Amino acid sequence: MKMNVSIVGATGYTGLELVKILLNHPQFNITYIANSTGDTTIDKLHPCLTDVINMEVKKADALEISKVSTLCFLALPHKTSMGFAKQLLELGVKVVDLSADYRLELDTYEEHYCTHEDKENLPKSVYGLPEFYENDIKNATLVANPGCYPTASLLALIPFVKYIDNNSNIFVDAKSGVSGAGKKLSETTHFVTVNDNMFAYNPMKHRHMPEIKEKVKLLESKDLNINFIPHLIPVTRGMLVSIYATINDANIDVKSILKEYYKDCEFVRVKDSCVDIKSTAGTNFCDIFVEQNGDAIFINSSIDNLLRGASSQAVVNANLMCGYDVNIGINKIAYVP
Amino acid sequence: MKMNVSIVGATGYTGLELVKILLNHPQFNITYIANSTGDTTIDKLHPCLTDVINMEVKKADALEISKVSTLCFLALPHKTSMGFAKQLLELGVKVVDLSADYRLELDTYEEHYCTHEDKENLPKSVYGLPEFYENDIKNATLVANPGCYPTASLLALIPFVKYIDNNSNIFVDAKSGVSGAGKKLSETTHFVTVNDNMFAYNPMKHRHMPEIKEKVKLLESKDLNINFIPHLIPVTRGMLVSIYATINDANIDVKSILKEYYKDCEFVRVKDSCVDIKSTAGTNFCDIFVEQNGDAIFINSSIDNLLRGASSQAVVNANLMCGYDVNIGINKIAYVP
Amino acid sequence: MKMNVSIVGATGYTGLELVKILLNHPQFNITYIANSTGDTTIDKLHPCLTDVINMEVKKADALEISKVSTLCFLALPHKTSMGFAKQLLELGVKVVDLSADYRLELDTYEEHYCTHEDKENLPKSVYGLPEFYENDIKNATLVANPGCYPTASLLALIPFVKYIDNNSNIFVDAKSGVSGAGKKLSETTHFVTVNDNMFAYNPMKHRHMPEIKEKVKLLESKDLNINFIPHLIPVTRGMLVSIYATINDANIDVKSILKEYYKDCEFVRVKDSCVDIKSTAGTNFCDIFVEQNGDAIFINSSIDNLLRGASSQAVVNANLMCGYDVNIGINKIAYVP
Amino acid sequence: MKMNVSIVGATGYTGLELVKILLNHPQFNITYIANSTGDTTIDKLHPCLTDVINMEVKKADALEISKVSTLCFLALPHKTSMGFAKQLLELGVKVVDLSADYRLELDTYEEHYCTHEDKENLPKSVYGLPEFYENDIKNATLVANPGCYPTASLLALIPFVKYIDNNSNIFVDAKSGVSGAGKKLSETTHFVTVNDNMFAYNPMKHRHMPEIKEKVKLLESKDLNINFIPHLIPVTRGMLVSIYATINDANIDVKSILKEYYKDCEFVRVKDSCVDIKSTAGTNFCDIFVEQNGDAIFINSSIDNLLRGASSQAVVNANLMCGYDVNIGINKIAYVP
Repeated sequence: MKMNVSIVGATGYTGLELVKILLNHPQFNITYIANSTGDTTIDKLHPCLTDVINMEVKKADALEISKVSTLCFLALPHKTSMGFAKQLLELGVKVVDLSADYRLELDTYEEHYCTHEDKENLPKSVYGLPEFYENDIKNATLVANPGCYPTASLLALIPFVKYIDNNSNIFVDAKSGVSGAGKKLSETTHFVTVNDNMFAYNPMKHRHMPEIKEKVKLLESKDLNINFIPHLIPVTRGMLVSIYATINDANIDVKSILKEYYKDCEFVRVKDSCVDIKSTAGTNFCDIFVEQNGDAIFINSSIDNLLRGASSQAVVNANLMCGYDVNIGINKIAYVP
Repeated sequence: MKMNVSIVGATGYTGLELVKILLNHPQFNITYIANSTGDTTIDKLHPCLTDVINMEVKKADALEISKVSTLCFLALPHKTSMGFAKQLLELGVKVVDLSADYRLELDTYEEHYCTHEDKENLPKSVYGLPEFYENDIKNATLVANPGCYPTASLLALIPFVKYIDNNSNIFVDAKSGVSGAGKKLSETTHFVTVNDNMFAYNPMKHRHMPEIKEKVKLLESKDLNINFIPHLIPVTRGMLVSIYATINDANIDVKSILKEYYKDCEFVRVKDSCVDIKSTAGTNFCDIFVEQNGDAIFINSSIDNLLRGASSQAVVNANLMCGYDVNIGINKIAYVP
Repeated sequence: MKMNVSIVGATGYTGLELVKILLNHPQFNITYIANSTGDTTIDKLHPCLTDVINMEVKKADALEISKVSTLCFLALPHKTSMGFAKQLLELGVKVVDLSADYRLELDTYEEHYCTHEDKENLPKSVYGLPEFYENDIKNATLVANPGCYPTASLLALIPFVKYIDNNSNIFVDAKSGVSGAGKKLSETTHFVTVNDNMFAYNPMKHRHMPEIKEKVKLLESKDLNINFIPHLIPVTRGMLVSIYATINDANIDVKSILKEYYKDCEFVRVKDSCVDIKSTAGTNFCDIFVEQNGDAIFINSSIDNLLRGASSQAVVNANLMCGYDVNIGINKIAYVP
Repeated sequence: MKMNVSIVGATGYTGLELVKILLNHPQFNITYIANSTGDTTIDKLHPCLTDVINMEVKKADALEISKVSTLCFLALPHKTSMGFAKQLLELGVKVVDLSADYRLELDTYEEHYCTHEDKENLPKSVYGLPEFYENDIKNATLVANPGCYPTASLLALIPFVKYIDNNSNIFVDAKSGVSGAGKKLSETTHFVTVNDNMFAYNPMKHRHMPEIKEKVKLLESKDLNINFIPHLIPVTRGMLVSIYATINDANIDVKSILKEYYKDCEFVRVKDSCVDIKSTAGTNFCDIFVEQNGDAIFINSSIDNLLRGASSQAVVNANLMCGYDVNIGINKIAYVP
């Protein structure tokens, strides 16, 4: 018997990707779709879904959701999201939250976002990076889906944290496709601004930097000097991360460490040469490559920012929360060519 | 009275850019254009020049060049280039060489390229980065035009070398447009490979790495641990460089150092925010921005890989070698939008 | 029980798309993959398939194919293809040929391609455009998969042929993504040639023009003055066709004609506004829109050139040849965003 | 002695292009730049102009303009533009208006735009297409700069109008880069909407259709059935037009007609093969090619939508209005590669 799920926040790109994944999912059954206004259908919101699904899109209502679904995906802006999550959890609905609201510890969150309005559930939330938190996710009722940058950065960085020189600086040079900026209109996402262009933004000030630092500390109990520099590239979807670090012993075989670390992971591919964006676009894979020059290392990872960086990782988390195999309903075939 | 100049290697992108610049140059007069085969015209090689210039393209011949020109631009592959330069210098022709043949000291060159066949002139060549070698260039008969990556990297790095911690690693994350790979057909330059994609190549192994290291040492007598990681981006022209380094005193005001260092330079713009590729495309400018996070610094530069990274810098060098103002004939207006 | 199928010509884009579709197909089971050289694996040929499928790729051999499969997809260049098809048919293997070899009547073929080397099977082949030849395809042992341009053009044009003024000219202005030109290296597919550019090629001389004319005549017994003008656009996959024609009665309601014509078709979506490329990319859909200005009509269609224009249409044909539902294994969810 | 000119409407792309052209113009001297708000500088509005020009940008004031300049370029939206033009003409300032306000006859204008508020000057305005109106432009005080689509369409169509079958339909399939839509934010110009995509818009309803029809009638006294279908392409600047028509005699040599027609024109290049966008990008050229198939013809033209389609054509008109050579200050060297 299938499990009924809801999607709140169907207007954006991650909401669309959730619909696309769940439509083909053998175990989940979409019973409710909502956005902030309602009164439309999913194929009107996303014309590419014409003749595929024409389900009604309602104005989000927690009680209604609890009546028709066991689990709810929240693809909402931060702050809005915790309002819903709180109600849904009280009503006994499992939640996968794609916003930042439950990703960080209280202090970190309030320093970089706003006052937290669900201090009760925050401590119960599990950070939804399956490679590191699989068992906690299996038992969670609230999973905080990681940000796209932290997903690609942590999967690349964690295997090497214990070997990194404490006093050195780590630099995370990340490049994201424009869909990462969402549908909102801005000069930055105007075609003429992005086409034939590339630039960094918020260097060493982006809100995903504290998320990366906090998780490194929690996972490896080590305070690293992480500097995060995001760039925008003329690509619709995809993310490439280049991490630069200094290890405390030039003789460590970083390639074997990486291969060994992920040998049993479904969705991480350790590559023998530089990774590219297109080979992961459309999939839940994170491709990783590492190169060494003395004590300097270059760790290179690639993900689809909308899938492994958001929606397909959310469904993997839902699979685990509901006792299903991580694989089911998750695409491994890239949009190549 | 105008000065007569020749261009050898008119088939490639840098040859085309040289023709485009020199056509509008108030002091230089193109008297001779050649490539490896000859027997065509410049507008047949580059149809965009139809009704603009239809000059004959000959099979390159040093003696002919010496009869009709005082200075010659060589836009040839390395190895081929030194063969011509040698003859031209013997015949009294000044040379601006856009290849790698005269950029490096003998040992560095032979380690990374091939046996050097003009050991006599190599020591006399001047490295054509005007911000650092202006006076030498003025008196040179042979100028080695820097590579595109070293140009963008050295202009960003040099002002900070003296403040960088000797034991730390410096990481140069460089992103180049596809024109940097030249006209040669390869899977890497196929539209389908590059569009919607991005990837690093030859990480910490590229031949521009020793060029950067050597010049840093010669200019600042300091051996730095420079790691160079080039990337290809879905852009035709332009280059963005992000340099990551650790300084030995977190209280240094890096922004003032940069502003002060370049306050009198025509072709360097110190910016107050992240640089982008389009603002320098079509010009000889190098835009630079620097940001700080404790002792970690992010130096960000942008150039047009075919102009400041090759042809317009070559003409600036020719201006200096011939006693003209650096500015003449050099474009400062970008291809925006 | 699943049906065993082979793929010959696994190196190109259409071969890759066949593998991707058949991997998820509930009824077909890939037992054999080949290209012209063999001695590799499918994930070595297409690294994006790493950890997805690592099947051996052999040097194509008809006898081997007949031993392990009931149906074979040929994704080969024309001329090479008929050589294989002939052998396979003799050995009792059903064939879906993606080349041009069995698309045209003998005279048309030999005028535009080369001497035909399988005159025996040519008359038995069925043109694989399911909307018009479904029943013939169901009974066929050899299906000639249509070209990408003819697929998008015929689906748009056929519903209106009977209303078109015989003496007027029909103009088919078609725009194709670069993947349509295949993997072969050429100046035309170099990133620098295509990026920020667009141009027509072989105007009114392309080999898909006679294919369109012949099928219109066979389907509607009408000789139309069709002029076909293909263009290349800076897009990887996708095709947009704009057809311009004159109808013999300005009062005909073209919108209703189109809606009525395709009301029962799974894979044609009649739209109320202009179609775009992205809404069909990744799917087997053909989106069509029509607009009218007096007796002038504009018929506008969009397909994915590699799927509806090649591989997914080939699998739909195989579904019909094997008595399966047209839908099975065929994707309807686009690569949006 | 140089002539003083003003630019009103400096915020948009055409305003920027005017500044870029006039900066290098040997005869025009920019004395005044304005937009609707003022209180800024041109390099703040367009950061790419940093260290190139830092002139003040004022709130547009006709009286001020008349005191400091002989001629004024108006790069404003329609309706706003005629308000200014009227005042400037009363004050004796020559005007080149880049908006639609003075392009059409009264009835045509009011049918497709709005009530005309300067009926007095409208009849005196000259349509600024130099190939057809050079002498009128020389004597004009008010020139209406043509739209980008009409420029590329009329230059391609006019030479053939007298040979076109009156009863046939003419189809103008036009493709424009995104800069043609201006800086305004809209879903249509969002990078994610345009990248890897292409679509038609307002087919046979666009306001440039009546402009083309009216000019054809005025120039060739012939009423043609012109159908105009614009498309948006994933390109920043450039425009490609494909015109499809039927001639009344299949034996006419269309190639010679075209060559002959433009043999003395500075800025039209008649090509022997299909034109492309990049070869005219950055220039004032219009490239044209024609092909024939019986009585069907394909006329293919390319321009830079911001230059020949707006700003450089405006400066050519100003050159003529001021008695200068059409060539001065006008770029012929394209942005290739």
